[in-house]
Amino acid sequence: MEIPVIRNVLEANTRLAGNLKRRFAEHGVLALNLISSPGAGKTTLLERTLKDLAGEFRMAVIEGDLQTDNDARRVAATGAQAVQINTDGGCHLDSGMVEDALASFQLDQIDILFIENVGNLVCPVEFDCGEDAKIALLSVTEGDDKPEKYPLLFHRAAVMLLNKIDLLPYVDFNTATAAAHARRLNKDLDLFEISCRTGEGLEPWYAWLRQAVQRKRNVNAAHGQA
Amino acid sequence: MEIPVIRNVLEANTRLAGNLKRRFAEHGVLALNLISSPGAGKTTLLERTLKDLAGEFRMAVIEGDLQTDNDARRVAATGAQAVQINTDGGCHLDSGMVEDALASFQLDQIDILFIENVGNLVCPVEFDCGEDAKIALLSVTEGDDKPEKYPLLFHRAAVMLLNKIDLLPYVDFNTATAAAHARRLNKDLDLFEISCRTGEGLEPWYAWLRQAVQRKRNVNAAHGQA
Repeated sequence: MEIPVIRNVLEANTRLAGNLKRRFAEHGVLALNLISSPGAGKTTLLERTLKDLAGEFRMAVIEGDLQTDNDARRVAATGAQAVQINTDGGCHLDSGMVEDALASFQLDQIDILFIENVGNLVCPVEFDCGEDAKIALLSVTEGDDKPEKYPLLFHRAAVMLLNKIDLLPYVDFNTATAAAHARRLNKDLDLFEISCRTGEGLEPWYAWLRQAVQRKRNVNAAHGQA
Repeated sequence: MEIPVIRNVLEANTRLAGNLKRRFAEHGVLALNLISSPGAGKTTLLERTLKDLAGEFRMAVIEGDLQTDNDARRVAATGAQAVQINTDGGCHLDSGMVEDALASFQLDQIDILFIENVGNLVCPVEFDCGEDAKIALLSVTEGDDKPEKYPLLFHRAAVMLLNKIDLLPYVDFNTATAAAHARRLNKDLDLFEISCRTGEGLEPWYAWLRQAVQRKRNVNAAHGQA
């Protein structure tokens, strides 16, 4: 019984994700689905990014959490638009939840929409939220074996951000090992080593965002001419 | 459609968990379900505990992972019996998987059975594996807001192990805040601050294990006389 039902849920989600993709494309919104373990630093990454790029892009955030609106409040304090989704115990966001949250935004006023998923390396990976790319965040305190042990995320992500590199002197983490495992799963993975606490290494991530926004605009312009 | 099916899955699991509880009681096995985020230190905790208490208790481990048998090999290297369950992408262990794994053990040769769940703060909490107690492991690198943001685990756990306290000087973590949130969810929670890396603080955890084994033996002895 269980597996067919889960398939139906996934299929229904994929249909809804298709609608979201069309809406994001229509309004030229770059949508990024941010996935990590609890406490890897998703919200701190967003706080930094929203502040540092505030002059360049119009950005909005959908925050997914089981409970509390702490993260949406942290993100809104940077001046960005933020909507909180509480899953009431649910382990991931899905396209239906994202669609509901979009009612709070004017999509043609947004360049980048960050979807901060529930802290979980497993379930969020299965549920497309209409995003252009999944961004995997791994902190060095979690261990260099995580890409090998949770392969689907690193297989599907466009970017792996290796966070908390300021803690490298105090933990047993081999960056080369983690990178090799991740690249074996996904040879096209863009990998950036960062510290959201100190700000180290964030510039290449911002450059990636600028390129991704530009690609999205080019596609949109080409469609407009067609 | 979705919710009733998930309920049926949970109900079927709860029935199987009841069978496991009877088997564990019959053989006087203390079963502990170890739950945390990926990389919080579950396997390192087990390596330490299995080595340090090898002379006192007969211990076995069921290792749950999406893929790889790395953790079972690490644990087996201590001399303990270990069985790996690969969930093939599944986000939690359930009683059916644990029952299958038990075929590898002689239960009357075991004092403590550790069930190391898949690294995930959400889904494993819902699925009883027949354990006497859930043990929540939180590392200080994950942030002091995690009990508030992932409340069900801390509500249901008997013990919260606050791990990686050797990293406290390098992170923004308020132990009193985390403890207060956790105790608001669960006033009976036993809380131990530990570092599995340095070995600091492990003795009170071992004392808890000794008491829990003794309680289980007393219950068993009382049943034997009845």
